[in-house]
Amino acid sequence: MAVKKIFESVKLFPGEGGVSAPKGYICNGIACGIKPSGKKDLCIIHCRDGADAAAVFTNNKVKAAPVKVSRRNLNNKIHTILCNSGNANACTGKQGLSDARETIKRTAENFEIPPGSVLLSSTGVIGVPMPMEAIEYGISKIRRKLNAENNVKNAADAIMTTDTRRKIARVTCLIGGKTITIGAIAKGSGMIRPDMATMLAFLTTDANIAPKMMQKALKNATRQSFNKISVDGQMSTNDTVYILANGLQNNSLINRPGNNYDIFEYALTLLCKQLAEDIINDGEGITKVIKFSVKKAASKRDAEIIARTVSDSPLVKTAFYGSSANWGRIIQAVGQCPVKMNPDRVTIIMNGRTVCENGMGCGISLVEGKQLLNRRNIEVEILLDMGSSSDYILTTDLTYDYIKINSHYS
Amino acid sequence: MAVKKIFESVKLFPGEGGVSAPKGYICNGIACGIKPSGKKDLCIIHCRDGADAAAVFTNNKVKAAPVKVSRRNLNNKIHTILCNSGNANACTGKQGLSDARETIKRTAENFEIPPGSVLLSSTGVIGVPMPMEAIEYGISKIRRKLNAENNVKNAADAIMTTDTRRKIARVTCLIGGKTITIGAIAKGSGMIRPDMATMLAFLTTDANIAPKMMQKALKNATRQSFNKISVDGQMSTNDTVYILANGLQNNSLINRPGNNYDIFEYALTLLCKQLAEDIINDGEGITKVIKFSVKKAASKRDAEIIARTVSDSPLVKTAFYGSSANWGRIIQAVGQCPVKMNPDRVTIIMNGRTVCENGMGCGISLVEGKQLLNRRNIEVEILLDMGSSSDYILTTDLTYDYIKINSHYS
Repeated sequence: MAVKKIFESVKLFPGEGGVSAPKGYICNGIACGIKPSGKKDLCIIHCRDGADAAAVFTNNKVKAAPVKVSRRNLNNKIHTILCNSGNANACTGKQGLSDARETIKRTAENFEIPPGSVLLSSTGVIGVPMPMEAIEYGISKIRRKLNAENNVKNAADAIMTTDTRRKIARVTCLIGGKTITIGAIAKGSGMIRPDMATMLAFLTTDANIAPKMMQKALKNATRQSFNKISVDGQMSTNDTVYILANGLQNNSLINRPGNNYDIFEYALTLLCKQLAEDIINDGEGITKVIKFSVKKAASKRDAEIIARTVSDSPLVKTAFYGSSANWGRIIQAVGQCPVKMNPDRVTIIMNGRTVCENGMGCGISLVEGKQLLNRRNIEVEILLDMGSSSDYILTTDLTYDYIKINSHYS
Repeated sequence: MAVKKIFESVKLFPGEGGVSAPKGYICNGIACGIKPSGKKDLCIIHCRDGADAAAVFTNNKVKAAPVKVSRRNLNNKIHTILCNSGNANACTGKQGLSDARETIKRTAENFEIPPGSVLLSSTGVIGVPMPMEAIEYGISKIRRKLNAENNVKNAADAIMTTDTRRKIARVTCLIGGKTITIGAIAKGSGMIRPDMATMLAFLTTDANIAPKMMQKALKNATRQSFNKISVDGQMSTNDTVYILANGLQNNSLINRPGNNYDIFEYALTLLCKQLAEDIINDGEGITKVIKFSVKKAASKRDAEIIARTVSDSPLVKTAFYGSSANWGRIIQAVGQCPVKMNPDRVTIIMNGRTVCENGMGCGISLVEGKQLLNRRNIEVEILLDMGSSSDYILTTDLTYDYIKINSHYS
């Protein structure tokens, strides 16, 4: 999109910075024995001065214990986000809730902060009790580690599960003459689907912004980023996006709509989109990233349903893996959607080449199809000619390696 | 289910008989050059005396030309079903419709029957014009072949696409002292999903039954058989079930509800269930068949949504491929359904072993899980404790071979 003049100061730095980039935050990650592999599995993000928080959680009816327990602390000043990988603490019943509360209590004791100032997050296997000995050992170990060193790479590594790459980014912008930074780390690779994608993202900022406005900005940014990606149509029990703001840049408080809020939301959205792209690019076993844009739909809802249905079709996803311009599978998936459509008015364009016009093939050969699709990033436009609404989803192909990763993960 | 006394005469013969088993039908299949592989691709089922017809078609909004053209003939006396594989004649526009009409005209001329007495069906690649020279050559060739020989194996082979096995069955029953036969051939392996599963099934009977009652019986039988299976959640453009009845057994006409109708519907359902099982067992690349039964749901609709969502989850399907008793993925899929549920009341049973009770794991080890699931047929019960409704779906695992077949099929 064309960048408005007020957004000129916004600068995105993919792969750089992370949650310790804004003023007043430190972080680190360690291995404490939750993962049998011995890899890093405990991450801490700490803000000495305390910060306001906002969050977006999974819409899955099955919610993990850390999600249930943490949401009560969101209105408090937050000092610490503690996140473990290797165990989701989901479907663990009362014991899981009590383990989450105990984890918060131990963290508070170790860091000498109120229990209400801790946010928890977990990712990993569902339905296995938390190894509390490892957690307790980990909390004191990570306190010592954090005292010695501020290390965002360790922090980003410690929240990964089947991820192959750490996900770090930051964005800066000018608000009322002050340079504001928002930093982030994220994880996500499988169980990824919009609304919201199965993933964790932790964001920090030194901006001075009212919690209400920050929640609004986070919700809008999430809608345009994490909720637009799908690896396998699956919604997790642990999805969480946290953002902390400590106000250390002393910009005049953002407490109502206006240019300053708009700049903040724009910068935040840019950052979240970058993280969402990082996540989809690290999708389990993928070789391609496909953007399905549905255009000229009768309604936004219709466009969204089609984009999701096509994105989740295993027949469509395997065809892209094979670099096959099999638009018949796309129109077949469109036809099973409960939307307004006329098959004879559907046009499908792949990387700029019209492959189906008014519901009929345009004679694309197998060889031309291969040439067209034998690349990592693919754009597919589906034009319905039923109205003026549009939506899109970023998805991936479905490969041998997805099967490999998911048939043997436990 | 316990068999009622009136159903005692019903006998199912899997793998036997087929469409030429009832009195008055002949069939055959040939290769005419539609498939580049040179395999059989044209099938004919013929009834010299004419028969009443009933049909169930795909619910996909994108319907193939043979579906559109054939439905107009359903109220006529039918002499011939002609079906080709290798080309779906779907998304082929006006040319496709005109090709379908031309195919019917040529068939009628060759067999000296009215054009209105021909039903067409096609399966194969979408969006490629029908090779009409091959079709025309095929029609005269198949006429000669049919004069020489009645061969149901050829007929069943000629409708296959990625199927690895032909699907043939028959059922017999006593109606008013007469032995009635219903015979069938079917195809289906990929693009299989309930409502209705992507497949073709052709059934013939020598029963004397009013078309209205036959349509009712077919609809009920389909609901309990083909609409209960899912390989990949995909609904095709060509799904068709045809049934023909020529009345040659001279049983007193079944033209209203009652014992005779009930016996017919029961026999037909048994036959369709057998074909549905044959199709799912030949699912693309599968190693396992899984029955997901949802019980104690608040409504039938809730039970169905959950059964379908779990059946279509790639994470669930890959876990079964790996013989992993990963019930966490099942409850995660349940949690994303728009239904009444309480995670703390969900119980999941695999092959009789409770693996999750009241939303919590029952401590099943990796080894025990493997032993439990290392077999072809798996039963999973999902108990919601929210009411008394239930439903089920038969599905398959998701394997390397599904990817292989579908990334390179064109």
